[in-house]
Amino acid sequence: MRIEVDGRFTGKFVSEKDFTGIAPEVRKAVESLRAGTGKGSSMLGWLTLPRDYDREEFARIKAAADRIRKNCDIFVVIGIGGSYLGSRAVIEFLRSPRHNELDSGSPAIYFSGCNISGSDLDELLELCSRKDKDVSINVISKSGTTTETAVDFRCFRALLEKKYGKRRAKEHIFVTTDRVRGTLKKFADEAGYETFVVPDDVGGRYSVLSAVGLLPIAVSGIDIDKLMRGARAAMRELDTDPDDFMNNPAYYYAAVRNLLLRSGKSVEVFVGYEPFELMFSEWWKQLFGESEGKDGKGLYPASVNFTTDLHSLGQYIQDGQRTLFETVLEIVKPDSRAKIPNDPANIDGLNFLSGKMLTEVNRTAMKGTLLAHEDGGVPGIVLKLADRSELSLGYMIYFFELACAVSGYLLGVNPFDQPGVEAYKKNMFALLGKPGYEDLTDKLRSRL
Amino acid sequence: MRIEVDGRFTGKFVSEKDFTGIAPEVRKAVESLRAGTGKGSSMLGWLTLPRDYDREEFARIKAAADRIRKNCDIFVVIGIGGSYLGSRAVIEFLRSPRHNELDSGSPAIYFSGCNISGSDLDELLELCSRKDKDVSINVISKSGTTTETAVDFRCFRALLEKKYGKRRAKEHIFVTTDRVRGTLKKFADEAGYETFVVPDDVGGRYSVLSAVGLLPIAVSGIDIDKLMRGARAAMRELDTDPDDFMNNPAYYYAAVRNLLLRSGKSVEVFVGYEPFELMFSEWWKQLFGESEGKDGKGLYPASVNFTTDLHSLGQYIQDGQRTLFETVLEIVKPDSRAKIPNDPANIDGLNFLSGKMLTEVNRTAMKGTLLAHEDGGVPGIVLKLADRSELSLGYMIYFFELACAVSGYLLGVNPFDQPGVEAYKKNMFALLGKPGYEDLTDKLRSRL
Repeated sequence: MRIEVDGRFTGKFVSEKDFTGIAPEVRKAVESLRAGTGKGSSMLGWLTLPRDYDREEFARIKAAADRIRKNCDIFVVIGIGGSYLGSRAVIEFLRSPRHNELDSGSPAIYFSGCNISGSDLDELLELCSRKDKDVSINVISKSGTTTETAVDFRCFRALLEKKYGKRRAKEHIFVTTDRVRGTLKKFADEAGYETFVVPDDVGGRYSVLSAVGLLPIAVSGIDIDKLMRGARAAMRELDTDPDDFMNNPAYYYAAVRNLLLRSGKSVEVFVGYEPFELMFSEWWKQLFGESEGKDGKGLYPASVNFTTDLHSLGQYIQDGQRTLFETVLEIVKPDSRAKIPNDPANIDGLNFLSGKMLTEVNRTAMKGTLLAHEDGGVPGIVLKLADRSELSLGYMIYFFELACAVSGYLLGVNPFDQPGVEAYKKNMFALLGKPGYEDLTDKLRSRL
Repeated sequence: MRIEVDGRFTGKFVSEKDFTGIAPEVRKAVESLRAGTGKGSSMLGWLTLPRDYDREEFARIKAAADRIRKNCDIFVVIGIGGSYLGSRAVIEFLRSPRHNELDSGSPAIYFSGCNISGSDLDELLELCSRKDKDVSINVISKSGTTTETAVDFRCFRALLEKKYGKRRAKEHIFVTTDRVRGTLKKFADEAGYETFVVPDDVGGRYSVLSAVGLLPIAVSGIDIDKLMRGARAAMRELDTDPDDFMNNPAYYYAAVRNLLLRSGKSVEVFVGYEPFELMFSEWWKQLFGESEGKDGKGLYPASVNFTTDLHSLGQYIQDGQRTLFETVLEIVKPDSRAKIPNDPANIDGLNFLSGKMLTEVNRTAMKGTLLAHEDGGVPGIVLKLADRSELSLGYMIYFFELACAVSGYLLGVNPFDQPGVEAYKKNMFALLGKPGYEDLTDKLRSRL
């Protein structure tokens, strides 16, 4: 398996007995997930996606990505939530958070339509309107009516039609939306934009391995065949007898984090030791926060990047309120060969490290921190990922999706809906005077 | 005042009576801070820094920054924790998170020495070793022995000496360290590097308005005179009678967040609505997490960036465990003029927004969200910042430093130490076999 879970640093906080106690619940959760009898079971497409994905569309994604890589300097992804977090997380994890600044031979990739920031939009439009820049966009929205995404799509469509003229602009616009329904699909077909599908049975936060994530990922030059193969391996290897859940990393992770929640921990901190893991932890936060944060339940998903944040939130984690546990991502075979040079002057007193690989020192920092935090009353779950590769990342994505679904069922919620996301939209529309919201408008205005 | 605090959305959660109850504590906290009789009172230099800073050094900072801006394509800041978070937060807030990708006429600024990531170091060394790139570095370390920073300083010093030769390299190396003590100061003087001072009575997380933050900030082209003037205004305006704390934004913020903690909230979520606020929320997390997270106490400082994260953590905040409150940053006069274009096709049904400014829609999203979260049981403290300017940001930095000190005293901790940060370092050194740690080494190894 490309992921193993090391629970040693939770031993002082959850007991054999706890695991025996939760075993029947794990079986029930896994069975209802596999049988499709649990809550939200109409949204289980992700469960078999790595095997059953549409090969014809997959080929079109690769072809489109090749054209974009050949013809464009800038590629703008327009989407929010699940329509951008997954692809951005994968691109930064496998390429770099500095992808756009390194000569990677790929187009610069920007993410738009994921906020209502005028200054952010001003910058991107300025960058894209430069004469010497060829630009393509990929708008991603199931309905086509998501405010943030729709607003920026209006702006970038106008920019492209100004740059290339209406007729040629359509070769620069790629639309990922509903297969048949929705105004965006209809409009795209009429306008002659190439379209890709947001599957009906895959929720946004589970959609990174569909066209939603795959087109931007392929544009960055990442091998999406390998990514899917990794996920397929996870799909196969992680489908084991739930009674043996201690040996299934996904089931075990779901169980132990629920046991820690029941023991009084309320915040799960996702810990990375590499800057390229930062956006992946944002994807993880959406996956677990949106799947489990309902009915007054759920662990609050936070994240840190060490050792940076050991000089920031480290003090709190070591000595603050004892309501935390950590989930630590360890990359077993890191890809850097950088060594610490010797310094004859030894002004920093670090010559005992001369010649050591940074990756070794980084791993030692991780071990020392796990021990320190355990002593401080903070349990640590260690996820050991084989390496920084397409195969391993595809595997880890599926691992977390599966673990999250099982964990949500253990918690007793529907891990596949997000009713709470509507609340702010309704208020926003009412306050903006959207037709049909008049009653609410007055109620809200009176409270402001 | 350039900051006002709006507590309306906490009204359902804290009462008049609560404020009356905490009033004597606020007076005591403020008095011991002002009189220098509280815990950690040897570290109060930040309190008067905006007025009493060293003018001669300030002029040298501006002169050095001008030279660097003229002579360099890349400026690498080498520091960790308080030695990089402040300057990076200010640069992204006033310039842009994409500062390096926009033609700003400033050198690209990279932050190194803030992790032990080999892949991160590989990238930066590759970027800096390019023949056509002129590079200067600023290493920032009080002692000069901080592992992360010292390791990267070794690597970049070697790179510069290879690029320019030992003699010319010294014009590209700027050292911010202890005024007199420490091996780094001694070494820098011998090598002929220009040095700047990490003040003795200002802790790392309070040091952004010292040379620690000011040199990198000045290199980015930001007007540091205005930044200091803003902080000076805050220093003057926020020094009011503590009995009138309801009218002092800093004292009031300190009081209300402590009342919310006492009412059972354990996580404070810092909320921004602009991507350029992301790094500022990281600075805020260090300031409060490291100042208050001790003795088993303190609010866990988390952050989100809306509306992006309304499509991620929004569900949790609306409906999850009711242990949260939000501190929301509103910029009263935003700087963007971007408008929502009309779309005759109206495929997204958003023509009711045509012609509206994005900043107006963004603010309305903020109001709608505050109301939705209040209904969901999440109190919101709104900080109204006048605008996105040096003056306002300098003001806000001082506001938070003052509020944090008072808040820490209300909590009953020493807001100026960070004993917990040593724990991981000791373990790391022991596991790396640093001379002098032999006993601990065996103890730890046996646990792994």
